[in-house]
Parts: sequence; C-alpha cells; structure tokens
Amino acid sequence: MDARTDPAQSCGVARTLQVLDGKWTTLIVRELLAGPLRFTQLRSALGDISAKTLTDRLRALEHQGILTRTIHAEVPPRVVYELTEQGRSLQVVLHAMLRWGRAHPA
Amino acid sequence: MDARTDPAQSCGVARTLQVLDGKWTTLIVRELLAGPLRFTQLRSALGDISAKTLTDRLRALEHQGILTRTIHAEVPPRVVYELTEQGRSLQVVLHAMLRWGRAHPA
Repeated sequence: MDARTDPAQSCGVARTLQVLDGKWTTLIVRELLAGPLRFTQLRSALGDISAKTLTDRLRALEHQGILTRTIHAEVPPRVVYELTEQGRSLQVVLHAMLRWGRAHPA
Repeated sequence: MDARTDPAQSCGVARTLQVLDGKWTTLIVRELLAGPLRFTQLRSALGDISAKTLTDRLRALEHQGILTRTIHAEVPPRVVYELTEQGRSLQVVLHAMLRWGRAHPA
C-alpha cells in the first residue's frame, strides 16, 4: 500500500480515523455492534470513561451518522443509542483490530 | 461480535488500540508500510505534525516493537525507521480502514 503516491489512497485511512477518532470512539462502536444500549449501560460496559467524555463522543458519532439517539416517551424517558447501517459497516475494521490484537498480545 | 459476554474478545480491540493509539500513530504505520523512511521524509509525508509529536510517537512504536530505528554511521549519520514483522502485520487493520474510508467518504 503506497499511500505516498496516491493521495486518494491516503484519504481512506485518514477518513476512517475521522470517525474512529481515538480509543473511546472505537470502543463505543465495538459495544454497539452487539446491539442498542442506553447511556448507563454503555458507561458501565466501557469502564473508566467520564459522563462528559461519553456524551461528547456519542454526539460526535451521531453527528457523523454512525449512530442514532432515540428518546422513548416513557416515564422516565428512555434514551437508546443504536448504530446506523454505516455504523454497523465499521464491523470489518473492528474485526481486523480484534484479530490483530488477539494474535499480538502485549 | 458480542464483546460484553467475552472479556478476551474485548481485549483484542483494546490491545490494538494500545498500539494504534490515535491518528498520528496509525498514519505513521501507514507511511512505513510502503517502506523505510527517515525522520524528515516521515514528517513531510504526514504534513502538519510537530517534530516533538513525531519523535514521541516513533519512540512509543519502537518501545512496542512495531518499528526499529537504525543509525547508519555516515557523515552526517543517517537515521532510518522501519516496521518490524509485527509492525507489517498491522497491514490488515490499515487495509480494512482504507477500504471503509474509501467506501464512506465524508
């Protein structure tokens, strides 16, 4: 893969990094690949993430069309986060990460 | 992929994120997949990265066994960065990112 000669090629990786922007965003997508979740469920699945960081990352992913935020009019209201089709298509990247990580433990 | 039921599964993605820790680290690996480079070549290929950030990221990747730093005893000395076998094996992850990014432009 010679990214130096073909700018379009270099944009593919850089484009994905725009979406999977750091550890938390990638781990949020990983969790939601298993199905929709509420904020508290996501936060407990991710462990040591602050409410603010999780809120910011979810908003960024929603803005990029990677997930939806649905408010169910119940008492109290229920807010559920779910991957869009584009979000689910990131599974190929997460799977490649999963396989590499398992094959190369720290 | 249900990371919530199998902690080992969740470690695969998290492990890869330990190595591909953010945008610059991933783009450095992308550049070196095309072959060894010197510091100045890497810096110009990556565009707006500071010398300090590049130095820090290269040191972290060297420490994790992803690349080697070789000093050629010439006048002036030539320092070349090159992926190790483990570094080159990240190609599967970068390729998955490349394909996803091309299929989903911003």
